[in-house]
Amino acid sequence: MIAPALHIPSLLEDWVLRRACAVWLTGLPASGKTTIGTALLQQLEHLSLEAELLDGDELRPWLSPDLGFSSEDRRQHNRKVARIGGLLLRHGVTVVVPIVSPYRSTRAFAREHLKHFLEVYVKCPLEECIRRDPKGLYAKALRGEIPEFTGISAPYEEPEHPEVIAETNFLTVDACVDRILEAMSNHGYLGDEIIE
Amino acid sequence: MIAPALHIPSLLEDWVLRRACAVWLTGLPASGKTTIGTALLQQLEHLSLEAELLDGDELRPWLSPDLGFSSEDRRQHNRKVARIGGLLLRHGVTVVVPIVSPYRSTRAFAREHLKHFLEVYVKCPLEECIRRDPKGLYAKALRGEIPEFTGISAPYEEPEHPEVIAETNFLTVDACVDRILEAMSNHGYLGDEIIE
Repeated sequence: MIAPALHIPSLLEDWVLRRACAVWLTGLPASGKTTIGTALLQQLEHLSLEAELLDGDELRPWLSPDLGFSSEDRRQHNRKVARIGGLLLRHGVTVVVPIVSPYRSTRAFAREHLKHFLEVYVKCPLEECIRRDPKGLYAKALRGEIPEFTGISAPYEEPEHPEVIAETNFLTVDACVDRILEAMSNHGYLGDEIIE
Repeated sequence: MIAPALHIPSLLEDWVLRRACAVWLTGLPASGKTTIGTALLQQLEHLSLEAELLDGDELRPWLSPDLGFSSEDRRQHNRKVARIGGLLLRHGVTVVVPIVSPYRSTRAFAREHLKHFLEVYVKCPLEECIRRDPKGLYAKALRGEIPEFTGISAPYEEPEHPEVIAETNFLTVDACVDRILEAMSNHGYLGDEIIE
């Protein structure tokens, strides 16, 4: 006997795969990427979407233990994260990726590899990031104790055409998340039934 | 208006998550792991299961480009593959993992990390693997051109309590796949409706 359950996945495949996307949160250290990503994930789960947070910093210890912060090492780490995102995405899992990803070329790689891709520029003035400095990393970098620190001793290449700009020095976390959800909806990644 | 589609994922979550598992195919080089894994994946897709092949050799170029084949490097690579498997598994994707994984300790890590885990020992006598040698690697290793080659100049620790033993020198690929499907069913990872 073939139970009806067998047919659910193919129905769902259409439903989910059509909507899954990668939300790539790029920005300076301490700009608010992880905070926004975590809040976004909660909203997506609340909407019953399969979603996973791929936090660049959290993945590093096991994914790229031998890589540092040179431009080539960052590129390699960023590409690995994009590829893992692709494995999830192809099974209908929306991936939320807070990651500094300072180079346009690696973000372009992620966009091309992931296809269903929304680039969110988590924008915050450098001075404000330095003021926040939750991990004390800017202080160290300014004292010259961390080489190649993005924003201080290594470049951050601003996104040219991001789908969303979340200015965290003006907007609340909820407001930033709303903008991302709106963009996801506009691109067909949420489904109209959710926002009506 | 909330469309019924919204409720499908939670239904499906129960249906899929209950069944998703990792099928870890360990064995000597050229024992038949990838061949069996590829055939198994086709069967799982035919049964409408979300499934992904995580081939240890195929992942290496982007996942572990700096790692070689020392015991520590192998362990690290194997652990990375297990962790990626875990990301998929938690979203209901069954992962099929053909990977030499010669050390008991790393297979034990994979079992503990993945929890829903079936170890398949793809068993084939070393002489037969040397005879097959599809990539000419055994020949090179026997000439001393590849250091730390599993089975020749590096150990392969046989599984002690694998859920399945697939003896590829006696069984056809289809027979091996059937044994794995039977074990998956017995462990509740397929659902009875499929095999009745």
